[in-house]
Amino acid sequence: MTPQEQRIETSDRDGDKLMVPARLVEAQLRAVLSAWGMPAEQTEITTRIMLATDLRGVDSHGIGLLPLYDELRQAGKLTMAPQVEVLRETPVTALLDAGGGLGHYPGDRAMRLAIEKCRSSGLAAVAVRNSNHFGAAGIYALLAAEAGFIGLATSNVWNAAVVPTRGREPMFGTNPLAFAAPAGRNPPFCLDIATSTVAIGKLRLAWLEGRDLPEGWAVDEQGHPTRDAAAALALRLLTPLGSRSELSSHKGYGLAAMVEVLSAMLSGASFAVLRDPDADRLNVGHFFLALDPAAFRDRAEFEAEMDEMIDRLRASRPVDPALPVLVPGDPEITEERERQVMGVPVSRKLAVMLRDVAQRCGARYLLETPAG
Amino acid sequence: MTPQEQRIETSDRDGDKLMVPARLVEAQLRAVLSAWGMPAEQTEITTRIMLATDLRGVDSHGIGLLPLYDELRQAGKLTMAPQVEVLRETPVTALLDAGGGLGHYPGDRAMRLAIEKCRSSGLAAVAVRNSNHFGAAGIYALLAAEAGFIGLATSNVWNAAVVPTRGREPMFGTNPLAFAAPAGRNPPFCLDIATSTVAIGKLRLAWLEGRDLPEGWAVDEQGHPTRDAAAALALRLLTPLGSRSELSSHKGYGLAAMVEVLSAMLSGASFAVLRDPDADRLNVGHFFLALDPAAFRDRAEFEAEMDEMIDRLRASRPVDPALPVLVPGDPEITEERERQVMGVPVSRKLAVMLRDVAQRCGARYLLETPAG
Repeated sequence: MTPQEQRIETSDRDGDKLMVPARLVEAQLRAVLSAWGMPAEQTEITTRIMLATDLRGVDSHGIGLLPLYDELRQAGKLTMAPQVEVLRETPVTALLDAGGGLGHYPGDRAMRLAIEKCRSSGLAAVAVRNSNHFGAAGIYALLAAEAGFIGLATSNVWNAAVVPTRGREPMFGTNPLAFAAPAGRNPPFCLDIATSTVAIGKLRLAWLEGRDLPEGWAVDEQGHPTRDAAAALALRLLTPLGSRSELSSHKGYGLAAMVEVLSAMLSGASFAVLRDPDADRLNVGHFFLALDPAAFRDRAEFEAEMDEMIDRLRASRPVDPALPVLVPGDPEITEERERQVMGVPVSRKLAVMLRDVAQRCGARYLLETPAG
Repeated sequence: MTPQEQRIETSDRDGDKLMVPARLVEAQLRAVLSAWGMPAEQTEITTRIMLATDLRGVDSHGIGLLPLYDELRQAGKLTMAPQVEVLRETPVTALLDAGGGLGHYPGDRAMRLAIEKCRSSGLAAVAVRNSNHFGAAGIYALLAAEAGFIGLATSNVWNAAVVPTRGREPMFGTNPLAFAAPAGRNPPFCLDIATSTVAIGKLRLAWLEGRDLPEGWAVDEQGHPTRDAAAALALRLLTPLGSRSELSSHKGYGLAAMVEVLSAMLSGASFAVLRDPDADRLNVGHFFLALDPAAFRDRAEFEAEMDEMIDRLRASRPVDPALPVLVPGDPEITEERERQVMGVPVSRKLAVMLRDVAQRCGARYLLETPAG
């Protein structure tokens, strides 16, 4: 387990959690990012995205990442006041340089640029280079859906963890892909997935709970399946979606490579395994696409058929009546409704780390402000 | 097992196969399609695509489908001389109506239109409605890569076979997705996958060989895993990529839904489970995207980094030195080299069916032409 792994403890289920109101999570994010020297506009956008991620229940990608970001910052791998620039642009494409900072602000700007171009042209794609972690890909795809467009967002990751079918070396990060589309009556469809079978966070959770891993999540140094959670966490060798040859893991491996091509080769970011570990910048890349259904058919017809699909999926017969069939995006919507009222769960371990993060940069620690 | 299943027997490994030279496969395809009344240009393009599919080793999607197409034709579900029309068009998008015919010709035309628009604009997307089976998605994605562009091709399928996570009813077809990108020294990267764990053809093969299925390919009517190949073939209930909840089958299910949105909701084709079984037209939909790397960065740099990725993947350490790590597209390239010389394997069972197909429409049966 790397130091950064030890510090991201939001997902432990130790039963000892704070329930932090959204506005305190927001204030804490703003205070820390600002104290790190992030300019005001970038701070606001990064705060908004990280808070939305926590509210949607994606604990592995929200405030729980501040300790990791702090570590990168201290190691000189994160520019806190980056220049985000448009390097190339046409009516339907653009390339952005993120200036070596966190990926949330350039990601947001890139997808909004794609949306703006899509409003004029019906279709647009924007790539980003020289970036860093951008949180949950679904947030960006949803921006497009909220504008009435289909949205696609992908990112590569600086550390390789996914082992190709037949292989024993990690060649790709967990390379996420998100796809969102607007509906009529229903909230947008939103698929937001890593292209590995599971993300690192699930190994950590099993380890914290003293459970063996299900076979098929991780492999050992020989490339053979391992169920030892501690060993798997130390090695960080994940299977691609599909998990093994017989269950078509070559498909998950291929999807991870597809995300790498769109995010890194297209933008000029670093291919995970070729990144110079001593370089100042991690040079992560992202890719965003926006597509207007109204360029193809009547918007209302498209949205009505999205509703029809969503309704049919929800109404389709489940194996266990207590566990209905879900539509991609449903779990996050349920979580968000609950957390807007109940607050964001933060483990004691993470709270301690966040207090340290705040103290280190001279920001106030706000999560346990009484009667805030 | 449906009648169409029984008739697609190219993939049986009964050891009793003809090796048919490519030019005879080509002549047979042309003779049958033409006898069915397909216009000359459409016949040439459909023949070329189906032959290329057979040469690439995708036996389930080449000449082995003629019996199924014949069945659809006889059932009045396939227009043999369709009007393929552009219904809507902008500089970067288009919608085509395929006129109720086979999908190969409109698929080819749609991707070529996307490529043409991409030449001017750097990016283009074309959707197709009112189509039918288009063979292997990879063929269309490769058209873009051969033009120097990134290509994406998807299709929905008229019969639902993929059961969502938690569910017990099939809600999507095997909804294929192909993604291709050009390299420099290397042939293009080409991922061509169904979003189910395996395609129906793999169940049939296990059944023919008297093997049980690996657990995780198919489910029974209660939604529980089944290893009985005969029962699974009869039921046609496939798992999404990932195969079960614990191994993240919700990701494969979500990808199948993504393909449905792009192929059916966007174009106005029929959502698999809502298709009227008595309708004259199956109204299958496709989606094609072309993206020019040179809109984002220097083309040579992009291609050099594609080469670097491909080379690194091939050189990465395998579990078994006799089974090196492959790059998506490699197996098809190897197969094509071999089949150009050795011919296309056609089982005796399929040969008999193809002879019947030819006789039924008055075309010559050519596969066993001596010393042709």
